[in-house]
Amino acid sequence: MNRLTVIKIGGNVIDNPVSLDAFLKDFAALEGLKILVHGGGKIATKLAADLGIEAQLVEGRRVTDEESLRVVTMVYAGLINKDIVARLQPLGCNAIGLSGADANLITATKRPLKAHPSGQGMIDYGFVGDLNDDSVNSDQMTKLLDAGFSPVFSAITHDGQGHLLNTNADTIASVIAVAMAKMYEVSLVYCFEKKGVLTDISDEDSVVREINPGTYNKLKEGGIIYEGMIPKMDNAFQAIEAGVSDVYIGRSDELACLNKQTFGTRLTH
Amino acid sequence: MNRLTVIKIGGNVIDNPVSLDAFLKDFAALEGLKILVHGGGKIATKLAADLGIEAQLVEGRRVTDEESLRVVTMVYAGLINKDIVARLQPLGCNAIGLSGADANLITATKRPLKAHPSGQGMIDYGFVGDLNDDSVNSDQMTKLLDAGFSPVFSAITHDGQGHLLNTNADTIASVIAVAMAKMYEVSLVYCFEKKGVLTDISDEDSVVREINPGTYNKLKEGGIIYEGMIPKMDNAFQAIEAGVSDVYIGRSDELACLNKQTFGTRLTH
Repeated sequence: MNRLTVIKIGGNVIDNPVSLDAFLKDFAALEGLKILVHGGGKIATKLAADLGIEAQLVEGRRVTDEESLRVVTMVYAGLINKDIVARLQPLGCNAIGLSGADANLITATKRPLKAHPSGQGMIDYGFVGDLNDDSVNSDQMTKLLDAGFSPVFSAITHDGQGHLLNTNADTIASVIAVAMAKMYEVSLVYCFEKKGVLTDISDEDSVVREINPGTYNKLKEGGIIYEGMIPKMDNAFQAIEAGVSDVYIGRSDELACLNKQTFGTRLTH
Repeated sequence: MNRLTVIKIGGNVIDNPVSLDAFLKDFAALEGLKILVHGGGKIATKLAADLGIEAQLVEGRRVTDEESLRVVTMVYAGLINKDIVARLQPLGCNAIGLSGADANLITATKRPLKAHPSGQGMIDYGFVGDLNDDSVNSDQMTKLLDAGFSPVFSAITHDGQGHLLNTNADTIASVIAVAMAKMYEVSLVYCFEKKGVLTDISDEDSVVREINPGTYNKLKEGGIIYEGMIPKMDNAFQAIEAGVSDVYIGRSDELACLNKQTFGTRLTH
């Protein structure tokens, strides 16, 4: 089985030109087949504000109304995606920038209305796409990988009926990794602010190098892994359960260490 | 040799939802391999105005400064391109939306500074890309066509050194058609406002069905083809000279007639 690395970067990398530059060099240098998934960052928020589009929140979550969808499509699938691709090309990485609509690669379902917890009315999250096990068109993705391209995904998908949908980038990375695990030996890499899971939150060098389901439970019991990290880790172990070889969590500026197995925290069986 | 149709649509189709819808249905139904190139339309102009970006003109031509480049990248490569792709998918057309940076498909040269006709200073058109005979990476394009994809291009290219460039959509369509003519029997189709070259400008049904270099000269001498049409026609005959089988000029809502050879004006050897 060929190796395939799926890497997700978020706003903290995209919003910082120095970080992004360094990351793209390391991504380009990474051996083997690879797919990049990028989030949005602050540019979309700024553009929406400049255009006088007010953020609508329900239950603390941003609603993607029609105007917001236009903004994220412009910023994620246009500005950020094409800038990343243009910068990867001279680094020797044959990047191809895509949304889920392109080549019908990722199909999502518009999030259904949800009863408001108050019991009054329904919550409409707008043009937000939810993914499932069949969302990724792995045959089409394989064609692109076989042709020598490195797909670069913005977090925009489609419903297969002509409409684009705003979708969570972490989830896109995860469903791609799981779907491609049938054909490849897949590593899934999440870049975030920390060097990995830390035993001491104030010490960036206290990285736990490897976690398996057994040690994961101990780390939760010991209070080392808590709050916001728990759903992330649960999702990572679900991906492993579904066939992904390993999931890495670490800082984008250490990506070069991935080949040397000294990048962040590795989650495995 | 396989047949390949390269079609260019401009702002008049993109700005009109009814026209665009009808065109996309006909494009999807078109037999054989196909590539779509789309221009921008008024959305970019409106977005720039909404953001308070003033259009800079030198010698009557718009300058693409850094802010304008961001706007056209967002609108052309993001909003319009992804909307077109999402709408083609349910019509059975496996569209893949691209800029020239993607898969390194179209490399342009930033337009050099030009001496101002007044003799004072230089004109800088900004981030505008000029194309030449080697601009199109026909090997990579063939890989995409062979894999069953229909490329949909926005008029954004790159310089191969990490920078995006705003590029004329008519020229993109023409250089793609010429480059691919080595491997395919290529028809190049320009959609514009009229049904074709008209012998009577006030009669939309007075279409000249076929023009060759001999009849072209007669039509120019007779004043039937004049002014703005002459450079367009000259470029079309250059493409034919360079290997393109034929060039069609007609209205987007008549595209369905292309297979029946009754679409617009056909330019040929």
